[in-house]
Amino acid sequence: MERNFLLTIEYDGTGFSGWQRQPDKPTVQGTLEKALSTVMGREIKVNGTSRTDAGVHAYGQRASFKGDFGIPTEKLAMVVNNRLSGGMRGTTVVGPVRVTEVREMPLDFHARFDSIGKTYIYRIRNTKHMDIFQRNYCYQVADELNVELMQKAAVHIEGTHDFACFQAAGGEERETTVRTIWQLNVQRAGNDVFIIITGDGFLYNMVRIITGTLVEVGLGKRTPESVKETIESADRQKAGHTAPPQGLYLKDIYYDPKEVPGYDRYKASQLG
Amino acid sequence: MERNFLLTIEYDGTGFSGWQRQPDKPTVQGTLEKALSTVMGREIKVNGTSRTDAGVHAYGQRASFKGDFGIPTEKLAMVVNNRLSGGMRGTTVVGPVRVTEVREMPLDFHARFDSIGKTYIYRIRNTKHMDIFQRNYCYQVADELNVELMQKAAVHIEGTHDFACFQAAGGEERETTVRTIWQLNVQRAGNDVFIIITGDGFLYNMVRIITGTLVEVGLGKRTPESVKETIESADRQKAGHTAPPQGLYLKDIYYDPKEVPGYDRYKASQLG
Repeated sequence: MERNFLLTIEYDGTGFSGWQRQPDKPTVQGTLEKALSTVMGREIKVNGTSRTDAGVHAYGQRASFKGDFGIPTEKLAMVVNNRLSGGMRGTTVVGPVRVTEVREMPLDFHARFDSIGKTYIYRIRNTKHMDIFQRNYCYQVADELNVELMQKAAVHIEGTHDFACFQAAGGEERETTVRTIWQLNVQRAGNDVFIIITGDGFLYNMVRIITGTLVEVGLGKRTPESVKETIESADRQKAGHTAPPQGLYLKDIYYDPKEVPGYDRYKASQLG
Repeated sequence: MERNFLLTIEYDGTGFSGWQRQPDKPTVQGTLEKALSTVMGREIKVNGTSRTDAGVHAYGQRASFKGDFGIPTEKLAMVVNNRLSGGMRGTTVVGPVRVTEVREMPLDFHARFDSIGKTYIYRIRNTKHMDIFQRNYCYQVADELNVELMQKAAVHIEGTHDFACFQAAGGEERETTVRTIWQLNVQRAGNDVFIIITGDGFLYNMVRIITGTLVEVGLGKRTPESVKETIESADRQKAGHTAPPQGLYLKDIYYDPKEVPGYDRYKASQLG
């Protein structure tokens, strides 16, 4: 009997040429499909939700695949994760990709087309001391960031706008550059500054360009108010630099409005 | 005028085939020498203190090189580190190798032959939750380690012994397998367990085999007392597994007994 599995996947994007399968490069999708195919004994192709770029990480990527498999749902993650890990003589070496959850879904469910939005987290390390052991996991900014100014700028980005100014060339063709950002928070935690952004969709490099722009606000190089003008200009040249990929984490994918942070507040503001 | 520079170097060993220069592989020494040669405008070869293996990290590797250079000592680190870093359009991307200190030394000083000992730290992450983002920076042990038992075993390793049991095949030929461990501490800090070991020299894979043996003690697979017998046996087969390289950090190199942790206590025990 045909079944439809939805996987939640976390990965360290450092050594990968991004999510999407490529013939001769290490990719997350390729690595996952290889492990699934070995475990299932036949070739498996998955539908991923987000095509994350090289160096970008994930806590909550999603992917689905169908097939007539006898394996119990609750065993699938363990078996695949064993295949994704290394180690010898009593040691376990954790691999860069891991399945954290498996759910069986109705046959007409599709991980990508049924998703209604997602959350990304961008991690900035904001201290004079550059940490070489953190270099693949954050954007290291030495000069102090003013988080209050960044949060003021973030307010102009929340809501439904044409975000052409925050789109890099080179992504997939899209019908429109209008997107809704339901929530955008900037928070300091010790030496880290986190940008947490939830929306119904993101243009190519959008979170990284928003981050670069907010960093420039935090450094006093542009005002919070200028971000409103930047959006209205629809001009990529007016926005800030593209923050590097290694600070970006795909946090969550949503299939139900009830799960989405900021959704109710946004809806209320639309009605008011 | 000929000058002699001593560098302190930290590096993330993840992407490297170890310290030692190799023709067609990325190595720490090769990367450092390339940056130094570019900065100095002529070919530079350095003498490193420790030939760390692939995947092993360092906070305090040392290396020296001589030459007739006009550059002020205090500027050398900055210039080399700029060369070792990446980044574009206003962003800095920290590289995997960084010079943390430069000292000018007498001409007859040699970073390796004049060193009298060193400290390694081995980092174990001891929690059920495997963290994919930590996988290159520690040894993840899921079952709870009894640190008290590990420390009891460590006492048998301190002092001057024939450590043939803790030597892997494949290293350089050594005249003797007798070494002195001045201090060996096992400490828990949250989810981490650190093994901190200081000695006058280490055999091939010695710290990693000691760690594997102590982990087996901590898991209750062997007794603290059995470690004494293992050392006396001089038999590699009687010792524990070799812990993976990614938990190992070269912490300090010493040129002066006054700097060495545990040195005075050891000397006093020898007199008593």
